[in-house]
Amino acid sequence: MTAMTEVEKHLRKSRNRKIKVEKGVEKAKEERGIMLVITGNGKGKSTAGFGNVTRCVGHGYKAAVVQFIKGKWDCGERNLLEKLGVPFAVMGTGFTWNTQDREVDISAAKIVWEQAKVFLKDPDIHVVLLDELTYMLSYDYLPKDEILDALKNRPREQSVVVTGRRASAELIEMADTVSDIQDTKHAFRAGIKIRKGVDW
Amino acid sequence: MTAMTEVEKHLRKSRNRKIKVEKGVEKAKEERGIMLVITGNGKGKSTAGFGNVTRCVGHGYKAAVVQFIKGKWDCGERNLLEKLGVPFAVMGTGFTWNTQDREVDISAAKIVWEQAKVFLKDPDIHVVLLDELTYMLSYDYLPKDEILDALKNRPREQSVVVTGRRASAELIEMADTVSDIQDTKHAFRAGIKIRKGVDW
Repeated sequence: MTAMTEVEKHLRKSRNRKIKVEKGVEKAKEERGIMLVITGNGKGKSTAGFGNVTRCVGHGYKAAVVQFIKGKWDCGERNLLEKLGVPFAVMGTGFTWNTQDREVDISAAKIVWEQAKVFLKDPDIHVVLLDELTYMLSYDYLPKDEILDALKNRPREQSVVVTGRRASAELIEMADTVSDIQDTKHAFRAGIKIRKGVDW
Repeated sequence: MTAMTEVEKHLRKSRNRKIKVEKGVEKAKEERGIMLVITGNGKGKSTAGFGNVTRCVGHGYKAAVVQFIKGKWDCGERNLLEKLGVPFAVMGTGFTWNTQDREVDISAAKIVWEQAKVFLKDPDIHVVLLDELTYMLSYDYLPKDEILDALKNRPREQSVVVTGRRASAELIEMADTVSDIQDTKHAFRAGIKIRKGVDW
């Protein structure tokens, strides 16, 4: 028996994993929209959400975006995707993280949530991005049961992407796919300024 | 002293974290492009990479994409971004994960890497996405030192996004920001078929 090189071992391991994945994909027979939650402290949650919207639109499907926190300022993704016909609902006041303005924030959240509910009922929309929805639950800004009901009762073929830190147990439980982005390293901790076109 | 409600405690904690982040952002004075590595087994690595490209293009900057493994097939992101003028370099043969075809794969990798090097020297390109570059190192498909040199010597203002599982120690070390996407849950393990416009 000839000894395998490290590279050969590695390749064999990869192939075995790939075969396992392919078998899993073959067994996967159910066709319907999924709920994807992208949470964790690392960079890339909203970015992945917008990547999903780009992918969806690139295949000729309709997508819609709701921005619960970010989005008040110049937003590269919105600049590009709105021009391509993607409807955006943006929390008008921004988000203050300030107890004094809690009532103002809640009112703004409610307005944007009304728009989100319209998207979540529209079977023509293939993907709805609910960017930073998790905070609306963790700060008790919107009624939890109403959010969970709207997610659960969306059209069968519609996928929904929820982003934000600390997704609640109910969101994780309901989701089909959950990615948890760990913050292994971040440029700003090394003193590098956030950059237009990269960080926002 | 009035007892704080759970929500108030939560908000105070968030504000404190936000103040800490803001202080960090203020202290961050260095302005230059960053290297971002998005690794881990979870869904969202390439998606976040393409989200970054969308953001960059939406601000009117130039971006370029190199796809080292995926991309042979119908690709939503490419459909959309190529039309907007983003140059793509795609590994023509696809990727076989097959020892017999290793030499074919290596030749294809070398061709696409030549194009990547051109992008990595162009100061007009604000963001270069090197999608699934990590495998070129872990399978020993491209010379490691050449890759690391090209990344290190890119134009100062250029940012680069590297995606793929198991990023090597050298890539992690060189990166300014590293996000590690954990696969908490995946729809296909629950028997749900991968979907156009969502998974690809």
